Amino acid sequence: MTPSSPDEYGADVSWSDWLAEQAASREAAGLTRRLRSRGPDDAVVDLAGNDYLGLSRDERVVRAAADAALTWGGGAGASRLVTGTLDLHTELEAELAEHLGQPAALTFSTGYHANLAVVTALVDRDCHVISDAHIHASLVDAVRLSRAGLTVVPHSDVEAVEDALSRGGGERTLVLAESIYSVLGDAAPLAELAEVCHRHGALLVVDEAHGLGVHGPGLVARAGLAGHPSLVVTATLSKALGSQGGAVLGSADLVDHLVNRARPFIFDTGLAPAAAAAALAALRIVRDEPQWAELVRTRVGDLAAALGVTPPAGAVLSVPMPSPQTAVAAQAAALDAGVRVGCFRPPSVPDGVSRLRITGTAGVAADDWERAVEVLLRVVKEHQ
Amino acid sequence: MTPSSPDEYGADVSWSDWLAEQAASREAAGLTRRLRSRGPDDAVVDLAGNDYLGLSRDERVVRAAADAALTWGGGAGASRLVTGTLDLHTELEAELAEHLGQPAALTFSTGYHANLAVVTALVDRDCHVISDAHIHASLVDAVRLSRAGLTVVPHSDVEAVEDALSRGGGERTLVLAESIYSVLGDAAPLAELAEVCHRHGALLVVDEAHGLGVHGPGLVARAGLAGHPSLVVTATLSKALGSQGGAVLGSADLVDHLVNRARPFIFDTGLAPAAAAAALAALRIVRDEPQWAELVRTRVGDLAAALGVTPPAGAVLSVPMPSPQTAVAAQAAALDAGVRVGCFRPPSVPDGVSRLRITGTAGVAADDWERAVEVLLRVVKEHQ
Repeated sequence: MTPSSPDEYGADVSWSDWLAEQAASREAAGLTRRLRSRGPDDAVVDLAGNDYLGLSRDERVVRAAADAALTWGGGAGASRLVTGTLDLHTELEAELAEHLGQPAALTFSTGYHANLAVVTALVDRDCHVISDAHIHASLVDAVRLSRAGLTVVPHSDVEAVEDALSRGGGERTLVLAESIYSVLGDAAPLAELAEVCHRHGALLVVDEAHGLGVHGPGLVARAGLAGHPSLVVTATLSKALGSQGGAVLGSADLVDHLVNRARPFIFDTGLAPAAAAAALAALRIVRDEPQWAELVRTRVGDLAAALGVTPPAGAVLSVPMPSPQTAVAAQAAALDAGVRVGCFRPPSVPDGVSRLRITGTAGVAADDWERAVEVLLRVVKEHQ
Repeated sequence: MTPSSPDEYGADVSWSDWLAEQAASREAAGLTRRLRSRGPDDAVVDLAGNDYLGLSRDERVVRAAADAALTWGGGAGASRLVTGTLDLHTELEAELAEHLGQPAALTFSTGYHANLAVVTALVDRDCHVISDAHIHASLVDAVRLSRAGLTVVPHSDVEAVEDALSRGGGERTLVLAESIYSVLGDAAPLAELAEVCHRHGALLVVDEAHGLGVHGPGLVARAGLAGHPSLVVTATLSKALGSQGGAVLGSADLVDHLVNRARPFIFDTGLAPAAAAAALAALRIVRDEPQWAELVRTRVGDLAAALGVTPPAGAVLSVPMPSPQTAVAAQAAALDAGVRVGCFRPPSVPDGVSRLRITGTAGVAADDWERAVEVLLRVVKEHQ
């Protein structure tokens, strides 16, 4: 910005002026986002969140969270390396690793942190990262923080990944993908990516944020790739597991490395007891009760067929809309009819296409789901 | 690293070899850190954590966390911008702002994220950050992630800050400080820093991680600087407030800006209900019962006098030791005698001096504290 006039202290720049200018230009562009808070028991059918299996409100999960708070306290009290590692963390990490078929796991206070940790602890400015064009903001930030050289390749283009690998360009190379991508809801070609990474000595990092739970242990495990020597998994505890936190899963050496080198692990307080216990209780339900994931996949499949759109690989259905305005109008019309859905608009869509984002969660009752489907069919038709 | 020999897939680099080499060199240097988990009710007196006021285990705090999990579920279910903003977050943010004397507040899933958010949303590669040499890793990472130009100035050196400000070098300038620094336990010259920042049109970011709670609303408020137009506060909910999470406090325009621009806020799941409720209950105790903070300051003051070291500004006493080896040996001897303390060693000390780190927490009973003091006086004497 151009420095504004000095104030009574002789200041060159007024931060409050700058913030006001930023707000005005957001407002003029129609891009202002505002927080709207909700109560614990909304009257609306909520198909906008990421509580894919409805486990956030499962009686066993909330009871486990409550009991952990009473037993362990409100927080972990310190960094995991000092006195913040609880038996509860160890138990959660062991069961996560076992369920996902990985040798070891390490939990973090958020999935964002898990992604920052694994990338920054493994690569530096002398390394190379090859990233799918659709990866999550946390992985984009992780690469920037690592200072590694970055090549962004077209979405799910294995040949482009191999081309970039062939050109080399770093002491070590990471390839970044998600098992299921958020916006388009499509699955990555994991087996091909793992093969090409292994052949070139690169390590494939797969974010299972949208795969874990909706596909049991996730798509890496389903593809028989759990424990693959050139593949590392990250996951979140805040979507299908209905809690808060993140995890990295891989070899015991990888976990030891993160414990010693990952600054977002070392310099952060351990995951709160209630969050660790909720995630553990949810994980056991994912493991023992596959019917919830089946229900989600049936729901999104049926809704996709009714709307005439491609069924997603995960729990989230993307419905392309003609414009950002119609997407917003359709979202508002659905809410008026008691159904909350999400909305993707530029600049947060990689291809510029605005979409409704509808979560086929198992967390709503059958009659609510049926009513929501009727509303959505009508609303989408009226706005397309 | 030098590429190792190709494996059966023709790979140039084996990641597992690299991880093993890294582990071996850590081990050879005696720098391997290992996680040790603890149960809910250790027999030791724990003076190593950051639960400064003992509120993590306070009956009202754990009850609030448990009730919130039962009422709201295990997680917030989505980004705060989608359906993850709960009335509970709004209530916590309003009371945080009120207690700290700031116009507005925004919470995050960890204090690390709060620091990443405020720096990356305010400055970019065309800007300048002036950082105290002792700031926390999360602020160091935040600057790196922002790509702003960085000047590190000597610890608490206001003249050096002013020199750096006079040289200019960016469209906007942030100055980073902590109200109380972790390793030395000393307080920042906040009034002088705020004055020089305001005069030069810079914004001062003060991390109250170790000040909030131990000094009621924190040292910014105690210095009469709350609401200062050139000052922003960050805080953690995981130390004196005994929970998990972080917060940024400042003008309503600042909070709106973070909601719209801070990627660690936008692309993260909202703080879990149990953590938000625990922090809120703890905040009310901090506000209504100043006796816990007084107890902490009395305890560290008395112990500092007995050990002949400088009393800290916060809850953590740093006791310089002759070498890393004696520091570790003293820590082990204290643990053998039933008292857990922390230990700072190079490279995580800014001046290369190894120290014992002793938290004068209000969270241990009077007789445990007295026994711990006896143990520490003996152990420190034996190892100095």
